[in-house]
Amino acid sequence: MAYKAVVITVSDRSFWGKRADESGPAVTAMLREAGYEVCLETIVPDEQWQIEKAIADGADRLDAALVVTTGGTGFSPRDVTPEATAAVCQRMAPGIGEAMRAASLAVTPRAMLSRATAGLRGRTLVVNLPGSPKAARENLQAVLETLAHGLDMLRGGPADCARQP
Amino acid sequence: MAYKAVVITVSDRSFWGKRADESGPAVTAMLREAGYEVCLETIVPDEQWQIEKAIADGADRLDAALVVTTGGTGFSPRDVTPEATAAVCQRMAPGIGEAMRAASLAVTPRAMLSRATAGLRGRTLVVNLPGSPKAARENLQAVLETLAHGLDMLRGGPADCARQP
Amino acid sequence: MAYKAVVITVSDRSFWGKRADESGPAVTAMLREAGYEVCLETIVPDEQWQIEKAIADGADRLDAALVVTTGGTGFSPRDVTPEATAAVCQRMAPGIGEAMRAASLAVTPRAMLSRATAGLRGRTLVVNLPGSPKAARENLQAVLETLAHGLDMLRGGPADCARQP
Repeated sequence: MAYKAVVITVSDRSFWGKRADESGPAVTAMLREAGYEVCLETIVPDEQWQIEKAIADGADRLDAALVVTTGGTGFSPRDVTPEATAAVCQRMAPGIGEAMRAASLAVTPRAMLSRATAGLRGRTLVVNLPGSPKAARENLQAVLETLAHGLDMLRGGPADCARQP
Repeated sequence: MAYKAVVITVSDRSFWGKRADESGPAVTAMLREAGYEVCLETIVPDEQWQIEKAIADGADRLDAALVVTTGGTGFSPRDVTPEATAAVCQRMAPGIGEAMRAASLAVTPRAMLSRATAGLRGRTLVVNLPGSPKAARENLQAVLETLAHGLDMLRGGPADCARQP
Repeated sequence: MAYKAVVITVSDRSFWGKRADESGPAVTAMLREAGYEVCLETIVPDEQWQIEKAIADGADRLDAALVVTTGGTGFSPRDVTPEATAAVCQRMAPGIGEAMRAASLAVTPRAMLSRATAGLRGRTLVVNLPGSPKAARENLQAVLETLAHGLDMLRGGPADCARQP
């Protein structure tokens, strides 16, 4: 059974139609390729409450196993995606951000500036990706295969059930 | 002089006698080998308040220099050991979790899913390890030798005293 | 145009004149070499409120783009620089601490004991360095070149302006 996923692009410019959203579709394509059912792709501006609402909607209303955001993880004054993520998650998963940055540091030292985080809201895993299509792809690539095992743990999926008699 | 240590196994199944605890004894053996005096080995279920109480007891009542937990660091709905740890520590030591995950990532990409953390409660260092005996051993191995220097700083031990006239 | 920087040495012994401050001047020299205008070099004791006040002053009153602290990042009972930093920053940048520790781990495993963090207070980036002159230099070296890009994002500097028509 495929896990449901939601992709949220966080970008003032894309929300207001001033720049085409390339990162969201790139992330969606990678998730579908990996077997996820992407049931919503949405764009929100860099407003913390709107990011929080979009993540909570994906988790609570759509019951997505995975919510992926792209954008808003840098140092610009309006970058607040990690803060929105922490605000709506009950448990954080710091190793995912660490693994993405470690992989990305091999490409560019600027990876250390990514403030991307990941956390759990109920039975949903939320993962931040950077906003540039290239960095979003690279970061997701670094963790994508492993996330499925995390979702199995979170949802009592195949891996976990295998251990039951 | 040997530092006192407490080992806490966090596991519903082990607490309720449905699975033998292999990780706790494995951690205790490694600590004794490294010269620690393990003065308590205990098992608690995956209940945040019980984990918090066990850590606080080890720190405040037993005055252990080191409290090591094993289990409850993953994505399962009842995994809350890092949250319990953060709740009872005044200062966090993120580099220890990072170092364990970095070492463990060389063995398996699933290491990125460990939410293990470490922190300081008064004069006690608290370190989370994963629940599987293999992963617990590998993670502890990655930091064990260095922890002693941290405890020397925390307790004004040999390393620190050496600098006094 | 050069970015303004403030260097804060956090050390009881240096504050009370019991030990010459070598780390502060070493950090200042590296920042000047890299083109920063260091407008204040100050020493505070390991008191959380005084560290907080010094960081806030550098950010709010002096409008420094970069505030660098050295000292107070270890396990000693009075080491509270990361706590002071988190208390006065609105957004954290965990990747900077991770990158410093990862670089430093290649030199010594004790790097994992550094609790150094980094964060953003308004339009100011705050970065903690360890207290020993050698470790402070090594850690700063690992991130110095990249910080400028972070400040460009934060302040809409050269890198960002280049994208405007």
